[in-house]
Amino acid sequence: MNRQDYSVLSKTFEDYLSAHQPYGSPDSLYEPVRYINELGGKRIRPVLLLMAYNLWQEDVTPALPAAMAVEYFHNFSLMHDDIMDEAPLRRGKETVHNKFGRNAAILSGDAMLIRCYELLLQAGERSGVGAQLCLLMCKASLEICEGQQLDMDFESLASPTDAEYLEMIRKKTSCLLGISLQLGAALAGASETEAQALYSFGEKMGLGFQIQDDFLDTFGDAQLTGKRRGGDILRGKKNFLYVHTYNTLAPPDQKDFAQKYELAVIRQNIDPILRFYEKQNMSEYVHQIQSGYFDEATSHLEAMDRQRSSSLLDFTKSIMNRNF
Amino acid sequence: MNRQDYSVLSKTFEDYLSAHQPYGSPDSLYEPVRYINELGGKRIRPVLLLMAYNLWQEDVTPALPAAMAVEYFHNFSLMHDDIMDEAPLRRGKETVHNKFGRNAAILSGDAMLIRCYELLLQAGERSGVGAQLCLLMCKASLEICEGQQLDMDFESLASPTDAEYLEMIRKKTSCLLGISLQLGAALAGASETEAQALYSFGEKMGLGFQIQDDFLDTFGDAQLTGKRRGGDILRGKKNFLYVHTYNTLAPPDQKDFAQKYELAVIRQNIDPILRFYEKQNMSEYVHQIQSGYFDEATSHLEAMDRQRSSSLLDFTKSIMNRNF
Repeated sequence: MNRQDYSVLSKTFEDYLSAHQPYGSPDSLYEPVRYINELGGKRIRPVLLLMAYNLWQEDVTPALPAAMAVEYFHNFSLMHDDIMDEAPLRRGKETVHNKFGRNAAILSGDAMLIRCYELLLQAGERSGVGAQLCLLMCKASLEICEGQQLDMDFESLASPTDAEYLEMIRKKTSCLLGISLQLGAALAGASETEAQALYSFGEKMGLGFQIQDDFLDTFGDAQLTGKRRGGDILRGKKNFLYVHTYNTLAPPDQKDFAQKYELAVIRQNIDPILRFYEKQNMSEYVHQIQSGYFDEATSHLEAMDRQRSSSLLDFTKSIMNRNF
Repeated sequence: MNRQDYSVLSKTFEDYLSAHQPYGSPDSLYEPVRYINELGGKRIRPVLLLMAYNLWQEDVTPALPAAMAVEYFHNFSLMHDDIMDEAPLRRGKETVHNKFGRNAAILSGDAMLIRCYELLLQAGERSGVGAQLCLLMCKASLEICEGQQLDMDFESLASPTDAEYLEMIRKKTSCLLGISLQLGAALAGASETEAQALYSFGEKMGLGFQIQDDFLDTFGDAQLTGKRRGGDILRGKKNFLYVHTYNTLAPPDQKDFAQKYELAVIRQNIDPILRFYEKQNMSEYVHQIQSGYFDEATSHLEAMDRQRSSSLLDFTKSIMNRNF
């Protein structure tokens, strides 16, 4: 079977999304939806869904509404999270609540969430799997809300434990990667075991990916990542590097580290924090954790036949070796 | 068949809701949900769903998760609308965003919306109508968002036309009454024609009910309604009485009326507005509009057998003759 690569699937999805922008009355409800859809992004979730579908079916056309459903869910969560975080910018452009007002961002976000389920039901209608897809998505959606709530709750703590932080990112970000793969497989007619294996693969890969992201933010080559080095530190965002360092220090050093992290924001200087990370051998530790997740992810592919799993293994390797 | 009346169904639902309060991790996501569920209210939507179900099925137990779904939708919309309206109180108690913060109200509202669809899918699972119920609800949900957006858009107008105002309340409030009845019927095994007839019945009854509500707010007996007479005027809320009066006046009088409406809020005196309403024979006009909707509502019941429609007719009569 002809398996399409990331860039082909991404282009197919982009064209579908553009051709299916929503219009309705009043247009003030739909304009913010079109705006966020046009902001771009890597479209990782819909492409993962199409990749999974493409493992069983050659023509991905019937999976496009389901791919749009997971992108709508993702954009709904960005709209609402950006209000909560009071973020002024998203992908270099004004956030929805900044451009259209807070109320529009709440309500247009609600509309995107509703459309997500409607699209899944419609995608699954012909093969009678609409209710199954939608139930899987509801379960995942609640976990994602729990992840966002955990993330907000952590703001009032000095630091969560490593395990609490990992559970938060599992719910907040990995879960949606897993469910995207699972939905694509289920829609394509995969067995429940295979679809579940893809969920677990996506979830673990997502954890590895997120930790790698936190690492590259601080230690990546700014010319390759296209982001200012140490952006998380400069914004005071407590990522995995912060959490792990904090938890391995003795209590008096924890206080010193937390204060220096606050100072780094004020002085816009990341050097004192880098010294902490180097002393803790953070680079080595993060690679170890991350490889562990990528190994665990690929172990879930053993339940599938080799021809199918090989393209996902290639994809995982390309992600593991990224430096941007 | 034994048909249960409003008070019995309402008690059954109340017990079910209390016994199924949600818990999870983190609890900070679920505490606001339990709080709004406990605020009470008349539970009109779940009871309508159970009434419709009870027209075909004696035991309403299998419909309770679906009844909870429409109550969850209603409470989700209250949580988010109260943020948008910056309302401090709901049913005499603190609103969710006032008590738990704006972010909690956004996220717990999202969780209630998600649970609404999950509950409908679960309720319909046994009889294989989960996808159908959920699709009907998604369609109605989007209309309800459109209604809320229209209501917000109207704030920047001197006044919408009568037709625009009626379309707004059809979407914002009547639609959920109609879909509650339709879902109950569809779950009970009614034909599509019958379920659709119940939707139309509920939608028109809802329009009549809402206009009656606007009328009683200004002209009702405060001792019977339990609310301060003219509450809408005193809060500056432009209800149907305002909109219709504004639209029947000549332009110079419109300006005078709008100014007096603003003054009524400042002076907390409704008398000048009452004089406008009396001069326009508002009482007679509203009764005419409202009876028109109730007649239209009952005409949709002709598609059903008489034994079934009679209990809904009794219910409509009791609402038409209410004075509180």
